[in-house]
Amino acid sequence: MTDMQIPKALIFDVFGTLVDWRSSIAREVAMLAKSKNVLIDAEAFSDAWRAEYDPAMKRIRDGGRGYVPLEILHRENLDRVLQARPSGLNLTSAEKAGLTNAWERLDPWPDTIPGLRRLKNQAIIAPCSNGSIALMTRLAKFSNLPWDCILGAEIAQDYKPKPSVYLASCRALRLEPGEVMMVACHNGDLKAAREAGLQTGFVARPQEHGPGQTHDLVASDDWDIVATELTALADQFTKD
Amino acid sequence: MTDMQIPKALIFDVFGTLVDWRSSIAREVAMLAKSKNVLIDAEAFSDAWRAEYDPAMKRIRDGGRGYVPLEILHRENLDRVLQARPSGLNLTSAEKAGLTNAWERLDPWPDTIPGLRRLKNQAIIAPCSNGSIALMTRLAKFSNLPWDCILGAEIAQDYKPKPSVYLASCRALRLEPGEVMMVACHNGDLKAAREAGLQTGFVARPQEHGPGQTHDLVASDDWDIVATELTALADQFTKD
Repeated sequence: MTDMQIPKALIFDVFGTLVDWRSSIAREVAMLAKSKNVLIDAEAFSDAWRAEYDPAMKRIRDGGRGYVPLEILHRENLDRVLQARPSGLNLTSAEKAGLTNAWERLDPWPDTIPGLRRLKNQAIIAPCSNGSIALMTRLAKFSNLPWDCILGAEIAQDYKPKPSVYLASCRALRLEPGEVMMVACHNGDLKAAREAGLQTGFVARPQEHGPGQTHDLVASDDWDIVATELTALADQFTKD
Repeated sequence: MTDMQIPKALIFDVFGTLVDWRSSIAREVAMLAKSKNVLIDAEAFSDAWRAEYDPAMKRIRDGGRGYVPLEILHRENLDRVLQARPSGLNLTSAEKAGLTNAWERLDPWPDTIPGLRRLKNQAIIAPCSNGSIALMTRLAKFSNLPWDCILGAEIAQDYKPKPSVYLASCRALRLEPGEVMMVACHNGDLKAAREAGLQTGFVARPQEHGPGQTHDLVASDDWDIVATELTALADQFTKD
């Protein structure tokens, strides 16, 4: 239990930290497969799709490709997964577009909304996600994430963990990095945020990748706050 | 009474259309003057400050200056007003900064919050203001504007009524201009939005500039929707 003043703003990783992308994507894949009478391992499909995420952003981070919003990468990555794992789904172009939009329909973890609401009463809260403004806006409407504004990759025109994404988010709020806390369940995200001068808050999500998860099970560093839930993270700030 | 489908997103002018900047700024000027035992015409001060708004943006729109966020212009314009109208206020630098932040503490019109809440249930709602992300975010927290995201000048790095501001806001939502409605109490704002391909909604604010207001009292063109209040504008969309 710390006795810490709340930062002026908290910015959040979203996929994994606030929403359960794996089960949500698997649910939509399973529904689509069922409608086509195809048997599929929907969780494995979800994992395979997510596995294309980082390599697709890497080209942009490395300067080999200009910034394109994440929904374009999701759509391209879907083609890769379908090619690599012949599933018999035979998706039409409209079905592929619809499935890509499943990334806008992800369920929050049970503590996400109560935690965000509590933090919002005391500070500015915003996503600092690799998702675009369009994606984050629609996801927030679907899952009732009560953002004050949308920050992250699109306003920086680059992808985390590049420092520019954290710094552009602070700058857009007219705050110094030290006045802002990055909250994430990924140690690498927090490492990059700390290097950029931000405060750091870790929330454990040991089920993000399902029951077999092997990384990011616990905090790997002395982050400013370490919590098992977002509500527990909110508890650690002094009430004023 | 129209029977119109709601657009996928409604984007809003804020100063004047949603919040009563004139009375709110005058209130803070009056408070500051009283604390210094200075007599001042606070409404006239508010008007004079606002009068510097458009000329300050014009240099940026015309390319004579790179984009700077509106709070910087407000601060610079405050100096102009203080120089042009010796008031005996003798503001310190901190007082000037505090007064500039009064633009983040503007009262909504009585119909603003009920109207926005109703529209938010059916569509994406966002400011398309000349205010920056930082300013719009803080203003939204002060006056409880329930935005889905913050669009407008900063993401376009330019100022309305330049078409790029409307178009960048649509693009950030991944929507065509025709899928988005610009809502404003200023006919010129709607004219520019229509020319950029957006739908248009006029809400009359005949008291924006006080009792002597002479322009924008009524719609000057056949905007897609014309209403006297934001709730009345919301009433004109088909319920689904």
